[in-house]
Amino acid sequence: MRIPQERLEKYRNLKREFSEEDHVNLQPIQRGGVLSEEAMRAIIEFGDGYSTCDWCPPKSARLDMIENPPIKDFYNDLAEFLGMDLARVVTRCREAKFIAFRMLGAPGDYVVLDGLAHYSSYIAAELAGLRVKEVPVGGPPEHKVDLNAYAAKIEEVKRETGRLPAAVLLTHVDYQYGNVNDAEVVGKIAQDYEVPFILNCAYSAGVMPVDGKKVQADVITGSGHKSWAASAPTGILALRKSLEEKLLRRASIQGDLTSRSFVSKELALLGCTVMGAPLLTLIASFPAVVERVEKWDEEVQKARFLVGELERIQGVKQIGERPKRHTLIHFETEPFFKVSQSHKRKGYFLYEELRTRKIVGIQPGLTKHFKLNTYGLTWNQVRYVSQAFLEIAEKYGLEVK
Amino acid sequence: MRIPQERLEKYRNLKREFSEEDHVNLQPIQRGGVLSEEAMRAIIEFGDGYSTCDWCPPKSARLDMIENPPIKDFYNDLAEFLGMDLARVVTRCREAKFIAFRMLGAPGDYVVLDGLAHYSSYIAAELAGLRVKEVPVGGPPEHKVDLNAYAAKIEEVKRETGRLPAAVLLTHVDYQYGNVNDAEVVGKIAQDYEVPFILNCAYSAGVMPVDGKKVQADVITGSGHKSWAASAPTGILALRKSLEEKLLRRASIQGDLTSRSFVSKELALLGCTVMGAPLLTLIASFPAVVERVEKWDEEVQKARFLVGELERIQGVKQIGERPKRHTLIHFETEPFFKVSQSHKRKGYFLYEELRTRKIVGIQPGLTKHFKLNTYGLTWNQVRYVSQAFLEIAEKYGLEVK
Repeated sequence: MRIPQERLEKYRNLKREFSEEDHVNLQPIQRGGVLSEEAMRAIIEFGDGYSTCDWCPPKSARLDMIENPPIKDFYNDLAEFLGMDLARVVTRCREAKFIAFRMLGAPGDYVVLDGLAHYSSYIAAELAGLRVKEVPVGGPPEHKVDLNAYAAKIEEVKRETGRLPAAVLLTHVDYQYGNVNDAEVVGKIAQDYEVPFILNCAYSAGVMPVDGKKVQADVITGSGHKSWAASAPTGILALRKSLEEKLLRRASIQGDLTSRSFVSKELALLGCTVMGAPLLTLIASFPAVVERVEKWDEEVQKARFLVGELERIQGVKQIGERPKRHTLIHFETEPFFKVSQSHKRKGYFLYEELRTRKIVGIQPGLTKHFKLNTYGLTWNQVRYVSQAFLEIAEKYGLEVK
Repeated sequence: MRIPQERLEKYRNLKREFSEEDHVNLQPIQRGGVLSEEAMRAIIEFGDGYSTCDWCPPKSARLDMIENPPIKDFYNDLAEFLGMDLARVVTRCREAKFIAFRMLGAPGDYVVLDGLAHYSSYIAAELAGLRVKEVPVGGPPEHKVDLNAYAAKIEEVKRETGRLPAAVLLTHVDYQYGNVNDAEVVGKIAQDYEVPFILNCAYSAGVMPVDGKKVQADVITGSGHKSWAASAPTGILALRKSLEEKLLRRASIQGDLTSRSFVSKELALLGCTVMGAPLLTLIASFPAVVERVEKWDEEVQKARFLVGELERIQGVKQIGERPKRHTLIHFETEPFFKVSQSHKRKGYFLYEELRTRKIVGIQPGLTKHFKLNTYGLTWNQVRYVSQAFLEIAEKYGLEVK
């Protein structure tokens, strides 16, 4: 159908309201996905549709076999970087989880996962026809996953179904509190029960060091747009060689009349995955990512500094593990909530006060608690953000130590 | 693991060997995915990771609900443009097919599809646990799908299994010959049997007019990077309202301890899909795409012109339907093959002769037959390409009428 041109006006000159250049963005899911300079150049170079496919090898016709741009090499280096044997780039971390669940389980099987797992872990399990058994999470203020309970949950599945779960999944760093879980504990339990161990590193790999071998992960999933300075959509699926035949099983379907078959194609990947610009941003940022994970300690220092400064406001409290070991921070901010109750802009006052100071990324309307992420901010920016919060607190008469 | 910096050198300064500016690229899958100027601007603006999510509505937290950038409006306009009721952007056309198969069928069900369907249609069926029954394709030189045979194939499935197929799929324009199938014929048959009709428009929607209502399609799948001047990976899933509850079914899984549930999330999409730059290229190109499909006739004229010129070389023959109704063209080029047999560069001579003339996109090594696509080339470029082939023919002593 013909769409009238005037209705199309809104699609012209699309702009983001704030950019890295003129704002400090604290959005909890966005800090690790800000493009590197190299990635920005790559996205311009490889913007066109199938830009990666100029040199697709005709025989295999597979993205992971392309040598120019160096996709094949990248997949090998990516696996090594994560302490794994093999890697594929897929369309999202959630797709990586779906692929693992789909290929490791049969409908009705269980996945044991932590109660702080991202919603996409649950949905990936549902789409694969699996059920979930949750590992309990401790109470406030730390909300720590009871890692040792993985053993009891595996036992529970065994009792209930007569067989082991299809996999256990641990969220390395959770989206809610930014707690860093000790993956080795779960790796050891999974190993003892011989259940495949999936470590979801959406918030860890790409910003902090992750060694899949050390923690005995069988599968690592990651998110390029969340933590690897890459454009969305990009997911990472890294695995042990021992799972290659299962996870990367080739297609076996055959045409009944034509006898066509597609035995080179990896079934659960649906053949090729990210055949364009986002993959190239991931590759272009890789050298910078390899370097930046080594500077993780300093990123954590910045997060701790911000926590210290904000907690000078009487009643403001960082929740989740203490001291912070990650840059995703969850604050309880009761005093700001009290201000909002008598403010004419209600809960929006805090967002607007910050916005005036060119600070964005705190969810508009929230004052009782909110999350932010300091990853990749300079020390000056972190100090500027701290100062802004303290200023706002003082402006509204809150007590500052 | 730490990767030595010298091994990372190859990931710096990634470049495509040829660009639209300095080469004529005839790559059959690439012509419709060349970015519009507006899309190139959008990709720079929205390069960073989760760039679409600045204004994610907290309550639904769904990509399709975002109003800034105008994703929600775009999905509505996209559906209308295709003559459908609802649309979603997913990560690839193959994922759109997988979603349709997964949600319409049960394991063991059949899909009836044309024998010229893309490999990804077969694999999507396999991943969804479905089997395929192929509709026969006629012999050379036209290789036309026997559209009326869909009825017999549905009957065959009924006899064999006692129930109807989960869906029928027709490849609107096939990847091999660029034949345009009359979708109305299959729409009518599917309607008569009350079997959902999936029209795969990877090579049609976005370059030529497609009206899902007129052809009675229940689902339309499309490819942004193939035909909508968008970056990969972008797929389109458009559907009738009557299938909304099936295809876009919400997640129902629930945590056993936490009781967490995710009832706003669309299960088979795994929640959000393309949350970054490629989606914005698709949106930014949309006004240009709405215009360009109206100029399809002229694109076909260019294709026919090229066929006429190349067939002046004695022995060169366009195969597939005649006259061409699409810009994807398959040539049998026996005379070039004869040249290759005594040429020191063997089959590569043709690629290299073209490359010298800044023409790329014909698969290196092929001389017996090859595919190319003229979509979006200017008349001057089409004449230049014709002239180049005629020159090469004459250089090697082939007979030119």
